[in-house]
Amino acid sequence: MDEDYVDAQHFYARQMQLLDAGSTDEWAGTFTDDGVFEVGDVAVRGSGDIAKAARETAGAFAAAGVTRRHWIGMLTVTPGPEGLTARSYALVLEIPRGGEVVVRRSTVCTDLLVRTGDRWRVKHRRVTRDGLDPE
Amino acid sequence: MDEDYVDAQHFYARQMQLLDAGSTDEWAGTFTDDGVFEVGDVAVRGSGDIAKAARETAGAFAAAGVTRRHWIGMLTVTPGPEGLTARSYALVLEIPRGGEVVVRRSTVCTDLLVRTGDRWRVKHRRVTRDGLDPE
Amino acid sequence: MDEDYVDAQHFYARQMQLLDAGSTDEWAGTFTDDGVFEVGDVAVRGSGDIAKAARETAGAFAAAGVTRRHWIGMLTVTPGPEGLTARSYALVLEIPRGGEVVVRRSTVCTDLLVRTGDRWRVKHRRVTRDGLDPE
Repeated sequence: MDEDYVDAQHFYARQMQLLDAGSTDEWAGTFTDDGVFEVGDVAVRGSGDIAKAARETAGAFAAAGVTRRHWIGMLTVTPGPEGLTARSYALVLEIPRGGEVVVRRSTVCTDLLVRTGDRWRVKHRRVTRDGLDPE
Repeated sequence: MDEDYVDAQHFYARQMQLLDAGSTDEWAGTFTDDGVFEVGDVAVRGSGDIAKAARETAGAFAAAGVTRRHWIGMLTVTPGPEGLTARSYALVLEIPRGGEVVVRRSTVCTDLLVRTGDRWRVKHRRVTRDGLDPE
Repeated sequence: MDEDYVDAQHFYARQMQLLDAGSTDEWAGTFTDDGVFEVGDVAVRGSGDIAKAARETAGAFAAAGVTRRHWIGMLTVTPGPEGLTARSYALVLEIPRGGEVVVRRSTVCTDLLVRTGDRWRVKHRRVTRDGLDPE
């Protein structure tokens, strides 16, 4: 159980570093092929479409010269029959050229993590944005 | 020692999720019956009164439509005769309807954690608010 | 590997608490004697000079009555021949008297951590400031 917890922490750190570096294909590879990503009332299905959506978003931020940083915190992990239910807080920071930091969004991220071989992947992610989406 | 460290991380994640979800009775249950919660120069004694104070605060934020998120970070844990001394930074975020994030408060949280059966509880918590309270 | 990860988390928590408390000599002692600290295109070499630079900065903030808090997050650790390469996000918060929180800087911190006896130290640190420095 402790091991799962530490594994999950490391997983999220790697996953967020990939996303923020614009390595969107590698990032999408941390979802299962049939993975689902829900934010508010929008759902993207399959790691191919998840990669495509991330690529477009990352491209828009890069074109605008804005760095993004995703922070995951207050992670809890609960083992279940299919895998781990991981619930965390996620902050999205945006830093335009000049270095001023904008805390853009506070969210709650609820994932179903499943093990494929020796690595964890996200089979289902639901993100609710504080102040915008019902939890 | 590592195990204590990971346990404490998970403990705080659960504890903060309970508080921010408005589960104030469960949250107060993470303190010992005779637990003390000090913020600045105010002290609340006993998990019953701690629950009551949390309920009132949570109710006020809910009525105003403001989500709160407590983030714990930079946790250090030192074992002692009574239990673990856990020192951490704690950030309090507030997100009103509309989703704008306000970083309301930066604090330092110093806890004495004691083990009751198979779980940790807070026997004493002292919170100092940066810029307002002497450390 | 897990153990290294948890050790590194605890190391950073202790290190940042020392810096923010103004314990700059103890903080500099978490670097090797020949440690290097690079921020942007400035490099400070040797733990003596690292301590001196930190002391001056800490003194200026203390004189101005401003509390600083360094948060490390999204830590990844990769073992190598010399030690651990640790990559993390670091946020710098500043809290002047009155308690308002300013998120001053978002950075990426890449460290080479080496083991000396039973403790880890930083042999090389490179900090890039988001929006200001190329990564």
